[in-house]
Amino acid sequence: MDIESKNVNALRILAVDMIENAKSGHPGIALGSAPILYSLYSKILNVVPDEPDNILRDRFVLSAGHGSSIYYATLSAFGYDISMQDLKNFRKLGSITPGHPEVGVVPGVDATTGPLGQGVAMAVGMAIAERYMANRFNKADLTLFDNYTYTMMGEGCLMEGVSYEALSLAGSLKLNKLIVLYDCNGVTLDGDIKNVMEQNTLAYFKSLNFNTIEVEDGNNVNQIVEAINLAKRCKDKPSFIKINTHIGHGSVLQDSHKSHGQLLGEESVKALREKLGVSTPAFEMDKSVARDFQIQRKRFDVIKRNFKEKLKAYSRAYPGDYKVLKSYIDGEEYNFESLLSEISIDKSYSGRELGAIVLDAICKKVGNIVCGSADLSSSTKAKCNSTFFNDDKTGRNIKFGIREFAMGCISNGLALYGGIIPVNSTFLVFSDYMKPALRLTSLMKTKSISVFTHDSIAVGEDGATHQSSEQLSSLRMTPNTLVWRPANLAEVIASFESSLNHNGASCIALSRQNLVNFESDMVSARKGGYIVAKEYKGELNGIIIATGSEVSLALTVKEELMRKGYNVRVVSMPSVEIFNLQSEKYRESIIPSKIKSIFSIEAGNTSIWYQFIGRYGKAFGVDDFGGSAKPTELFEKFNLTKEEITKSIISIIKRNGDKINSLF
Amino acid sequence: MDIESKNVNALRILAVDMIENAKSGHPGIALGSAPILYSLYSKILNVVPDEPDNILRDRFVLSAGHGSSIYYATLSAFGYDISMQDLKNFRKLGSITPGHPEVGVVPGVDATTGPLGQGVAMAVGMAIAERYMANRFNKADLTLFDNYTYTMMGEGCLMEGVSYEALSLAGSLKLNKLIVLYDCNGVTLDGDIKNVMEQNTLAYFKSLNFNTIEVEDGNNVNQIVEAINLAKRCKDKPSFIKINTHIGHGSVLQDSHKSHGQLLGEESVKALREKLGVSTPAFEMDKSVARDFQIQRKRFDVIKRNFKEKLKAYSRAYPGDYKVLKSYIDGEEYNFESLLSEISIDKSYSGRELGAIVLDAICKKVGNIVCGSADLSSSTKAKCNSTFFNDDKTGRNIKFGIREFAMGCISNGLALYGGIIPVNSTFLVFSDYMKPALRLTSLMKTKSISVFTHDSIAVGEDGATHQSSEQLSSLRMTPNTLVWRPANLAEVIASFESSLNHNGASCIALSRQNLVNFESDMVSARKGGYIVAKEYKGELNGIIIATGSEVSLALTVKEELMRKGYNVRVVSMPSVEIFNLQSEKYRESIIPSKIKSIFSIEAGNTSIWYQFIGRYGKAFGVDDFGGSAKPTELFEKFNLTKEEITKSIISIIKRNGDKINSLF
Repeated sequence: MDIESKNVNALRILAVDMIENAKSGHPGIALGSAPILYSLYSKILNVVPDEPDNILRDRFVLSAGHGSSIYYATLSAFGYDISMQDLKNFRKLGSITPGHPEVGVVPGVDATTGPLGQGVAMAVGMAIAERYMANRFNKADLTLFDNYTYTMMGEGCLMEGVSYEALSLAGSLKLNKLIVLYDCNGVTLDGDIKNVMEQNTLAYFKSLNFNTIEVEDGNNVNQIVEAINLAKRCKDKPSFIKINTHIGHGSVLQDSHKSHGQLLGEESVKALREKLGVSTPAFEMDKSVARDFQIQRKRFDVIKRNFKEKLKAYSRAYPGDYKVLKSYIDGEEYNFESLLSEISIDKSYSGRELGAIVLDAICKKVGNIVCGSADLSSSTKAKCNSTFFNDDKTGRNIKFGIREFAMGCISNGLALYGGIIPVNSTFLVFSDYMKPALRLTSLMKTKSISVFTHDSIAVGEDGATHQSSEQLSSLRMTPNTLVWRPANLAEVIASFESSLNHNGASCIALSRQNLVNFESDMVSARKGGYIVAKEYKGELNGIIIATGSEVSLALTVKEELMRKGYNVRVVSMPSVEIFNLQSEKYRESIIPSKIKSIFSIEAGNTSIWYQFIGRYGKAFGVDDFGGSAKPTELFEKFNLTKEEITKSIISIIKRNGDKINSLF
Repeated sequence: MDIESKNVNALRILAVDMIENAKSGHPGIALGSAPILYSLYSKILNVVPDEPDNILRDRFVLSAGHGSSIYYATLSAFGYDISMQDLKNFRKLGSITPGHPEVGVVPGVDATTGPLGQGVAMAVGMAIAERYMANRFNKADLTLFDNYTYTMMGEGCLMEGVSYEALSLAGSLKLNKLIVLYDCNGVTLDGDIKNVMEQNTLAYFKSLNFNTIEVEDGNNVNQIVEAINLAKRCKDKPSFIKINTHIGHGSVLQDSHKSHGQLLGEESVKALREKLGVSTPAFEMDKSVARDFQIQRKRFDVIKRNFKEKLKAYSRAYPGDYKVLKSYIDGEEYNFESLLSEISIDKSYSGRELGAIVLDAICKKVGNIVCGSADLSSSTKAKCNSTFFNDDKTGRNIKFGIREFAMGCISNGLALYGGIIPVNSTFLVFSDYMKPALRLTSLMKTKSISVFTHDSIAVGEDGATHQSSEQLSSLRMTPNTLVWRPANLAEVIASFESSLNHNGASCIALSRQNLVNFESDMVSARKGGYIVAKEYKGELNGIIIATGSEVSLALTVKEELMRKGYNVRVVSMPSVEIFNLQSEKYRESIIPSKIKSIFSIEAGNTSIWYQFIGRYGKAFGVDDFGGSAKPTELFEKFNLTKEEITKSIISIIKRNGDKINSLF
């Protein structure tokens, strides 16, 4: 057997050992796709294993994340900081080798994958990032950004709609530095793909404006490498390489869907070892193989040196740009205190308009924000004063097309690439379409901001299909996800500031309708919750918490209550998460635990508010679908009017027997 | 001008009048696609306007739902029960002509659309339903089910990933009775599609195994009708017809993206009237046009008679099948009381195993349930004892492929068709992928059930990407959505029973790990929340609410607390929504408002529980991402152990100063 085949088989067995040892995992893809991963790290990828974050490196996303075992084994063999012990700890608590690849946890992993389809879309984002950074920083005499982005997908990723969305955009943008490798074995968990996915894959990719290549024998490293090199020569299209493999290659379960996630067991592993000619015990590598990997790693020293020299040359020739680049990559702590006085508000604005004003002002200060929308930028207004990247090299706004989910994933790819902060936008109700991507943003702790306008039933005539109700709270419940629903200029500024300082998904919900501006300051707004209208001295009868466009409603309710002799306080709480991060003392000062009559007003699902209002107050909101009507009529329908709320609050304060303050 | 053109132009102007009158809407698509809708209703669709739900009718889904104005105008002209006054009420509160088409609200509308891409996918579901019902009921000598399903989409639907998912399955299933009409104008809200969607659409559909046809002049009714008739002759593939139109046809904004959602204004409407040769005032129809529509409607009388005769002949020749069919279409009130004694549990089962046992037993009783999974049926086990529909005419399980979102939409299509109850399945965490479809299920009040297994961090080694945390509560917050997380056999039976009786999305969350079985009865389980372990007599110190796999944990905590002298009660709450539907008296008897120390245990996001536990108890749960480790280790990581919870509960009971019962 030639050394190449020996190497590949050694990785196969290592992956199987990891799975057997962990007693869970996916042997099918590990055995089938080993030659693809081997080819990449052996001959193709320009990476630096001991500098896994080197900004100039090629990117690789294993979109079929369940191939983690073979991926980690390969990374380890090629010199990434993953030891044999780490491989033994595969899928164990606190290990750097979790069940599916996680960026920031596994050295060399460029994106967290597992939820199918998203890896491909993140790779598209990385390829866009490369082009963007090349446009911004490369010089006629010095090409700094020039990397390729590779992704490997299987049938699962191909069937998921998000891969189509992203690939369609990639073809439209002619991202020639994107190379998609398709581990094609014709089998998925529930069986073969007959009558399930019968599409002509090569024709499909051609129709999406891809250069297409087929590798007949996916076990042949030379064929794979040749195909990739051919793909790299295509200068006007992204490339797609269909590689025909066998799931569970070499095992008793070869070509059976059972090999997808079923352990092989001791006997079968023994047979597999024999078949693949691997005689070493578990977690040991044949000496000749180990030596060959050692030799191969030298390739990376050359790459490392080249990258270093390139950056050095750049820093000397273009010190200004280099400094900017470094600041983009390193990031910073953002503070937009000054904006509050810089921006003058002369009239009543909608939330989306305030958002547009603030975002554009911030984009002037933060040069590496890239905006974009799923075809709603004219309506969300979340773009900066620049052209569209799709049509213009210097454009800082991306037209994602009507592809919300891909927008979320591509934003993740942009952020993962480094040096770019994506700000995307759509209507709040359509955040549902991109939720799986937002979850991954927060899991990966990447910085990606979403501006969600049309943030309640106040959308009006477009009707229930276009009106959010549960989305706000649903996003708030997603771990490591920041949600803001600002009510005025200070809160809008605070929301962007806070989002830019957050590592995870940030969602800024903005109204379509005009807001009644009220004065507040950045110090308060930054707390996520603060008193906007104090009670009079004396006994406090109740507290009204409100957000966004409902703060002004709360203020009118308070006035009415005060007129009727009830002493209440209004709290604006633009961000539940940020408020909950404040000290217990602060929170207690805003919402004292002794107060029984606490209320919330937000034109959305009310569940989230009970943590503050408890069992004795009332949440005024929208626990149903909206409707097609004028916003004012819808607010009446849901009893979200000054009159109804005031009446209801009075009856609850009375029921709770709270001492009524004698205001008069 | 020929009468056909006059008719089309009359509809165009009517749609524009509606939009101008409503002061909002989408004139671009209305003007551009009018000839397509006209062609369908004038020459193609076998429908019965005064029996809009006739089961034998052709189905039509306007996937580009923002074309509602021209859609309603057309429906009205062809005799559906939509008056001129209804058209004047377009987009007004309580009207039958809302901003986007809503099924059950607008006569003749077969699906609620607006959220792009989903209409196409629902149409695929309807085409599957037709084939399924034909397989089930048609006889060699009597073809009952034989309808076509048409859908019209624009660039937006084409870009959305969900359309691809569904179309790819449609091609794989060779659904020749599906005809997709593409209103191709090359423009979307944010501009033209250059560098955004440059795919070769005809080649794309060919690759998906579609028969493809192009109509050069989308303003030519004859060309459109000819193309559709050609499509109908294809017997082994679904058809795709690309129809080249002009957005905003005839208006000053023709071919501009501004016509998408911008009002034309009085002057432009006047100019348009002239250009299109329409001289009647707003909301009035030219007499010759009105007369022609009147004549055209006679076509439907023939269809109505044919349908009636067909059903009559069927009922005579096959009275048994007819009775079954009628019962499928009419539905019934389901009661599975008897299953609890019929099913004998001899060992400890996981939630998903209990689900499988119960679902299969129910499928034997309810013959029109169709199961299916997004390639996880081997893992969710949610299928019935039958073959796969993809491979076998009589199969009652559908392989949706790895397409969760399309699965949700296709399920909606199956349900909307009539006579079928879809039960689909995937992992709970991937409910995110199909959330937009679930929302539409609930909005449309269609009956569609999702079995979501692997319902917490207890998934274990697959890691955070495969573990739900916020999904449970997020689904609970979606309006008209039923969520069950059963803990034992009785609750599993109740969950399916309740879901089958619910019109809207139902989600049944089931564990991957084994459950500790405890006795309960259907009467209790059906309440959604009930006491599973009573306190001793005397002062009640606290209440522990738990769901699913955490009920057994709650029971061990209770034992420990009792041992330490704390008198607590355990409540199993498999369905928050159902519990909240019970009388105040009942709810008060389970969770009395005077009790301060109330706790919840559920391995998911905790937000939902504060409505019960208030501000003085504690929610034990998982407000973070999980991890890749053994379930027991993960439960320890999140302090979800008997020891930690007991300790915490005692300190809170003490803090709340509740009188401690002297148990000893």
